Amino acid sequence: MNAPDAVGARLREFLNRPHADTRAKVLEIMREAIFQVPAEVDRDTHRAQVLAALRRLADEGLGGLAFPEAHGGGGAPERTIAVFETLALGDTSILVKYGVQFGLWGGSVHQLGTTSHHARLLPGIASLEIPGCYAMTEIGHGSNVRELETTATYDPDTGEFVVHTPHEDAGKEWIGNAALHGRMATVFAQLEVGGTAQGVHALVVPIRDADGRSLPGIRIEDNGPKAGLNGIDNGRLWFDRVRVPRENLLDRFATVTPDGEYQSDIESPGRRFFTMLGTLVAGRISVAAASVSVAKVGLTTAVRYSGRRRQFGPEGEPEVPILDYRVHQRLLLPLVATTYALHFAVRDLVERYGGALRRQAATSEAPGDEMREIEAAAAGLKALASWHSARALQASREAMGGRGFAAANRIGRLRADTDIFSTFEGANTVLLQLVAKSLLTQFREEMGDLRLMGWVRYAAERAGTRLSELNPIVTRRTDADHLRDPDFHLAAFRYREDRLLVSVARRLRGRLEDGMDPFQAFNECQDHLVALGRAHAERVILESFQDAVVRAPSPGASEPLRELAVLFALQTLETERAWFLEAGYLEPPKSRAIRAQVAEVCRELRNSASGLVDAWGIPDEILGTRDGTTRGDEHAER
Amino acid sequence: MNAPDAVGARLREFLNRPHADTRAKVLEIMREAIFQVPAEVDRDTHRAQVLAALRRLADEGLGGLAFPEAHGGGGAPERTIAVFETLALGDTSILVKYGVQFGLWGGSVHQLGTTSHHARLLPGIASLEIPGCYAMTEIGHGSNVRELETTATYDPDTGEFVVHTPHEDAGKEWIGNAALHGRMATVFAQLEVGGTAQGVHALVVPIRDADGRSLPGIRIEDNGPKAGLNGIDNGRLWFDRVRVPRENLLDRFATVTPDGEYQSDIESPGRRFFTMLGTLVAGRISVAAASVSVAKVGLTTAVRYSGRRRQFGPEGEPEVPILDYRVHQRLLLPLVATTYALHFAVRDLVERYGGALRRQAATSEAPGDEMREIEAAAAGLKALASWHSARALQASREAMGGRGFAAANRIGRLRADTDIFSTFEGANTVLLQLVAKSLLTQFREEMGDLRLMGWVRYAAERAGTRLSELNPIVTRRTDADHLRDPDFHLAAFRYREDRLLVSVARRLRGRLEDGMDPFQAFNECQDHLVALGRAHAERVILESFQDAVVRAPSPGASEPLRELAVLFALQTLETERAWFLEAGYLEPPKSRAIRAQVAEVCRELRNSASGLVDAWGIPDEILGTRDGTTRGDEHAER
Repeated sequence: MNAPDAVGARLREFLNRPHADTRAKVLEIMREAIFQVPAEVDRDTHRAQVLAALRRLADEGLGGLAFPEAHGGGGAPERTIAVFETLALGDTSILVKYGVQFGLWGGSVHQLGTTSHHARLLPGIASLEIPGCYAMTEIGHGSNVRELETTATYDPDTGEFVVHTPHEDAGKEWIGNAALHGRMATVFAQLEVGGTAQGVHALVVPIRDADGRSLPGIRIEDNGPKAGLNGIDNGRLWFDRVRVPRENLLDRFATVTPDGEYQSDIESPGRRFFTMLGTLVAGRISVAAASVSVAKVGLTTAVRYSGRRRQFGPEGEPEVPILDYRVHQRLLLPLVATTYALHFAVRDLVERYGGALRRQAATSEAPGDEMREIEAAAAGLKALASWHSARALQASREAMGGRGFAAANRIGRLRADTDIFSTFEGANTVLLQLVAKSLLTQFREEMGDLRLMGWVRYAAERAGTRLSELNPIVTRRTDADHLRDPDFHLAAFRYREDRLLVSVARRLRGRLEDGMDPFQAFNECQDHLVALGRAHAERVILESFQDAVVRAPSPGASEPLRELAVLFALQTLETERAWFLEAGYLEPPKSRAIRAQVAEVCRELRNSASGLVDAWGIPDEILGTRDGTTRGDEHAER
Repeated sequence: MNAPDAVGARLREFLNRPHADTRAKVLEIMREAIFQVPAEVDRDTHRAQVLAALRRLADEGLGGLAFPEAHGGGGAPERTIAVFETLALGDTSILVKYGVQFGLWGGSVHQLGTTSHHARLLPGIASLEIPGCYAMTEIGHGSNVRELETTATYDPDTGEFVVHTPHEDAGKEWIGNAALHGRMATVFAQLEVGGTAQGVHALVVPIRDADGRSLPGIRIEDNGPKAGLNGIDNGRLWFDRVRVPRENLLDRFATVTPDGEYQSDIESPGRRFFTMLGTLVAGRISVAAASVSVAKVGLTTAVRYSGRRRQFGPEGEPEVPILDYRVHQRLLLPLVATTYALHFAVRDLVERYGGALRRQAATSEAPGDEMREIEAAAAGLKALASWHSARALQASREAMGGRGFAAANRIGRLRADTDIFSTFEGANTVLLQLVAKSLLTQFREEMGDLRLMGWVRYAAERAGTRLSELNPIVTRRTDADHLRDPDFHLAAFRYREDRLLVSVARRLRGRLEDGMDPFQAFNECQDHLVALGRAHAERVILESFQDAVVRAPSPGASEPLRELAVLFALQTLETERAWFLEAGYLEPPKSRAIRAQVAEVCRELRNSASGLVDAWGIPDEILGTRDGTTRGDEHAER
């Protein structure tokens, strides 16, 4: 890592906020040998090393940061995500193991359980005495978790739930910690009480004894080798009429009395289900945060290499660094800018989430509107950040040519490990549709009980001022001042979101009024919904970034951030320019001017590129050039 | 594999042409145990297995298919590419080892050497008695091979060349077969004769003895673990004043007499160099062919899975196959169509190449215009096909969710292995610029010795009829008949290519006339050049596809191909619609209509999707669901 100058140090310090102490502590621990996973490692060894690293983190008290202080936790969910974000710079299996144990297993006990569960389980989860699983996904059901088929039937005679897998395909699948290390599992199952189906609920089910043998009625199978994350022991679980005490129901949102009466404060089964699912939000925020870190690793390596690697040049003169090439700048620098944008969007959301959680705990109320907005933001950010990190790694590898293919650079394994980020914690296209549906619902709720037609009109009115701003002066202005104006950017992003919302609402309305089945109607508008989800998330990201520019100290941080925010906005407009042209928001000359401006900003940022990635503060050891199997970097530096 | 019906069988038979017998033979051999590489394998075992598989292919006479019949070869380069294309369905390391030994090492001796080299080496190369390397890339020079730094200095006193690595960075790198198995290498070096530098030439240099020990003066280092292709023993090579006899110069295009006189029929050093490089064309065509196969593997698995996997559905009704979802159709079906398009483009180019090669051999002349056109087509196809296969695998994995992450599906390793396809045999963005420069040169040559300004005017005139066809009736027509008209598609593709050619020429001219250094001028137009290269390649691909539709037997093959060609064309126009809107070739309503039409064609093809991938004829064993570690496919089928 190059020594940052004073200005760079200020940017770096700003990026490190908040929880800089937690981040520093984790980075320090990550230097230890147990965190260095070799480029070549067999699955068993990798799994054992990952468990050992997890134990180290637990021993340092980093496991229970999010849990209530009353039960030995840290009461600071934001810090857990800061740990997760930092761990994502290293071996991804260690990261995911941390997420499975403390985030999914611990988080489900914390968020879905009540005080007795907390007291009984959280200390052992935080210390890793009770390794556990989060058993939601089934072989037959991934995205559509509402239709899970595992059952939990209450038996009032014994006061127990009978957990059962009705057929092979209802087995739990891809469950982290299941193949080897898990002792207990939060199992999601269709609850049946007194012959009535109450929908999906979660129960704690022991699966292994202290010696690691599976308990009676539990069948476990290893999910086998995977494309990546082979340090995680994913497995399948089947239950054969496994009995657990009534108290094992995680009963924050619904409970069953000893004599078999089902009780819940949330009357609507749908709302109850989505309230429980909503507790997943920390997982999605965490994956978004990890994706940003992963992109940083790839881009830091690629940008530094591209500044040193020389190839071709003017006749008779020395070869030039490949970062001098326009195509190369346009490949890497917009990705750097987007990584910055996502960085701030994630950090903002984490703080917002932590605050909401604390307010919620203080009032003991079920999550309300604020949390639903956070859920939509988390779903959108997770989708965009995970796709972004895949693109960033891909570009980083290509930018480095053959050098990017060396295992020593870690890019290949990172790519293989994190590819699944677009699937787990919710498939990205499904998540973006959730975002869109949430936006549709929000309008409807704001309007009270009006029918679809009513809120569509309302939406049109609300967005009216924005949607009417299409005047030739704006659609045709091509001067740099205008093209770099943050207000222009935000207006364009908002216009796209609003117009997509109104137009998809109109399309849905037309179909529903014609008597089309809602499922079919939504399917016909599916790509439109996905576009809306993306537009919303991008607007949220831009707002976070622009806000950070304003907050950032000057000189040092604010100036480079301002230019990066411009690049993020312009390259998003460039990517989406076909839509803007179709909508008449851009005229062709302006669209071309945006393209030219993206190239121009990239050119301007070329010389600060190395400083911009240095500011992310990733230690050299972690970037993976430490092991000497590839020494091309030094060689290329001539 | 589902049993194809009569219609499907006809399509399949058509796709299998030409050289169906060779393809069938390779597929049969690929069923043998030695070709089944386990999902988990350590590097040494993998390398040994890959060598054994290569030996098996050599024993079957598949190694020397391209070599001259006079030296025991098959005289049919097209068949070697058919072998390569088929091998690409299996383990990619076996594929690449085949390419290194017979294509690069054997091909360089064949194409750059003369009869004595052929007689001395080709039989042993074909039989694998002489495993060898193609040592071009250096640590310091990948893309810019003209500036390689290894030297070969003629010593007239002994009649030898002295091959030398002047400094560490001039070492050869990423050389397949170098780390373990290679005995000899074609080494590219700066030739110096009598104190005069003659540019890069190729020589045969022994590097190991029969016992596998490196020879004196040769230093070899293993390139170590890689992101993929770990069955290939890539290595680095340094030469310390290694002496080889004069006869080891591969002297088809230039020779050195015993007393040290350099002779070449090609006067221009630049043209000589590019003529030698031109012999690389088979490698690029082969990588394009392999990319198509790789895309087929991923898409076959993903399309079949998506037809069976059910998730969500109308209220109270059974869940629907995920391929019923609009987003899913739009993800996979355009990729299927593009795979078909590339299939025909590659097959056409292979035949064209084989013919040109035979004509060339018959006349003993240096490669002419025909070969240069083939080179441009190969560069473009290789770039687009390798990027396409990466996208197809990515989409296939995502389309399958968690299931796509199981190693048993092979998608993960395929992705990791073939990622480097966008780099080797020429980095894709560099190749697309080569295509563009070749188009610029072609115009200039057609015009004789006119200066740049002259041919720009000529180009504008030549393209005039096309560029003037912007009339409102065409730019606004949105009816399906027009949008699906092959003539509309081809006209649009040609318009884009021509206009990009003329506009980049204008931009270059402006800069050059202003006295800008050509290197700088080209750099400022770099993304424009890349766009032109892509546009050219896409037009060539569309022509091949449309031609195949005409040739295909009806009923059975022609009908589905016609619709796939429409989808390929429309989705390319959709992807590029921002450019067409900016150019005024599309008005917004037409652009939107194209998007809608893409969705509509996808919907129409949904029910034949499974048949369309079955027609590729990939045996189940090869698709990798054989090993039972993932059995989700059957489970999902309910």
